[in-house]
Amino acid sequence: MQWYLVAALLTVLTSSQGILTTLSQSEGRYLYDYATVPFLAEFFKLVVSGLLLWREHRTSPSVRMTTDWRTVRLYPIPSVIYLIHNNVQFATLTYVDTSTYQIMGNLKIVTTGILFRLFLRRKLSNLQWMAIVLLAVGTTTSQVKGCGEASCDSLFSAPIQGYLLGILSACLSALAGVYTEFLMKKNNDSFYWQNVQLYTFGVIFNMAWLLLDDFRSGFENGAWWQHLLNGYGITTWMVVLNLGSTGLLVSWLMKYADNIVKVYSTSMAMLLTMVLSIYLFSFKPTLQLFLGIIICMMSLHMYFAPPNMLVDLPTTIKAPHPPEGLKEVSIEQRTDS
Amino acid sequence: MQWYLVAALLTVLTSSQGILTTLSQSEGRYLYDYATVPFLAEFFKLVVSGLLLWREHRTSPSVRMTTDWRTVRLYPIPSVIYLIHNNVQFATLTYVDTSTYQIMGNLKIVTTGILFRLFLRRKLSNLQWMAIVLLAVGTTTSQVKGCGEASCDSLFSAPIQGYLLGILSACLSALAGVYTEFLMKKNNDSFYWQNVQLYTFGVIFNMAWLLLDDFRSGFENGAWWQHLLNGYGITTWMVVLNLGSTGLLVSWLMKYADNIVKVYSTSMAMLLTMVLSIYLFSFKPTLQLFLGIIICMMSLHMYFAPPNMLVDLPTTIKAPHPPEGLKEVSIEQRTDS
Repeated sequence: MQWYLVAALLTVLTSSQGILTTLSQSEGRYLYDYATVPFLAEFFKLVVSGLLLWREHRTSPSVRMTTDWRTVRLYPIPSVIYLIHNNVQFATLTYVDTSTYQIMGNLKIVTTGILFRLFLRRKLSNLQWMAIVLLAVGTTTSQVKGCGEASCDSLFSAPIQGYLLGILSACLSALAGVYTEFLMKKNNDSFYWQNVQLYTFGVIFNMAWLLLDDFRSGFENGAWWQHLLNGYGITTWMVVLNLGSTGLLVSWLMKYADNIVKVYSTSMAMLLTMVLSIYLFSFKPTLQLFLGIIICMMSLHMYFAPPNMLVDLPTTIKAPHPPEGLKEVSIEQRTDS
Repeated sequence: MQWYLVAALLTVLTSSQGILTTLSQSEGRYLYDYATVPFLAEFFKLVVSGLLLWREHRTSPSVRMTTDWRTVRLYPIPSVIYLIHNNVQFATLTYVDTSTYQIMGNLKIVTTGILFRLFLRRKLSNLQWMAIVLLAVGTTTSQVKGCGEASCDSLFSAPIQGYLLGILSACLSALAGVYTEFLMKKNNDSFYWQNVQLYTFGVIFNMAWLLLDDFRSGFENGAWWQHLLNGYGITTWMVVLNLGSTGLLVSWLMKYADNIVKVYSTSMAMLLTMVLSIYLFSFKPTLQLFLGIIICMMSLHMYFAPPNMLVDLPTTIKAPHPPEGLKEVSIEQRTDS
């Protein structure tokens, strides 16, 4: 499968995620416990990956599966990073409001680029760096509060701790992505086996999280498994299936493409959600959304288009022939003498 | 003189123009007739160019000055285009409000690129086209109305005539620039002689415009020359000198650089004015201004940086040697046979 088809599918599914989540609410609130959704999605991913691993193992018994502890112990780390990230996120929101938090979230595009360069040692051209910054600028532009909306004085007036935690949050989010890519590309293990390890720890950490919630609330609603599917409707199940599927696609991109492709997919999804919301939830289209879309499209083209499509390279266009000619001539000369 | 120094000076002076004009007001209104400013600026440019032409003629009597009618008759055309543009501008403003008009004004960046390509047949790379579009997007972003400001419903709700006239206005503005560049580069005439012709017609058209104003108002304040300097203060004179100087710099850029350089200078000036207004007039800094500045800086770099600074060009780096080697080998071969 081509990576750009997977990326396009991820864009569509990530975009549907926001819309399905909104549709799953009744009168602006959730009838179900939203914390159960990520748990069930992890469980779904584990079951799918397990089945696919079983099928793979049946058709070709030589499937590569590293099972020694030194490799397996690396798989809970993404879950640990996400856990820390969740807590930093909560801490950030005590200092800044949600719209400032949303704006700062775009920083993770840039931090992903930086960690991608530092940890995975992937070289990017100047133009690609500019494209990454422009992608972050484009998504931020689309989120600029328009006139008529509530006051946005808060943006430049949060305490410094809020901004520092926002930056930390962006770094952790990028780190989780970059680390997962490192893990998936580390060896030639079966993709499904890697997923099974990743999601097993995902399920465990999510269960622990749900249990912690129960302890916090003093088990006033009983244990989490007793009210797991309370209030679930068809849309809620679609939210779960959708979240699980996007997770599997992200995992595929981490192994066969990279973090930057993922970042582009999810950023485009955010814009697509905003455009679809105009039709579905009669959101008012804004000038800044339109500008943001243009900026992100330019960024996409700058990052992925081959350089000779972007700039005129007189030497490169003529280059392929002379060197070949040179070789031929050299050979002829050698046979002459 | 290097073109980028002239461009930087133009940016600073164009930016001061907005600030000086604001400072020349008393309690939000002009104490003088603003229509007299362009006339005096044209007159200033004519005097400066005339003196410089006289000095040039004294030092080297062989100064190139085409005086036949077929060339001279081309010089009133920019004035005619500006006259039509002014009228279209008035017509546009009867359909759209000033902030929509200001937003649409950014279109002239793109129309200048298009006419530059079509009429002056200058080739631009894909990346340069993207840079031009991004410049327009960046200046527009900086102008997006923030929260707390008046309602901006008007932006998408003006009658279609308003938008069409706005596009026409952007085309006329671009046409005037591209035509002037064509005129200045048409032959090797003395730069000062070209200016003298341009500004002579400029002075005539401005005088005619002032007289027309008098006729419209039924000479209730007498003829324009009777109240020409009424209410002029030191700041008003600085506005005149500044406008005249920016005109001369633009003329220099048209002859020795091009329209795109001018468009970048004036766009950067707009952003500089907004930044300076934060300090001078305690304007509130907005997120969109910050984003607009980043976008325009990226665009500047994309347009003017040499391609090998932007993308990795393995073939170009190695290319210079093989072709030379090829020639040498070919010659050797010929002498062998």
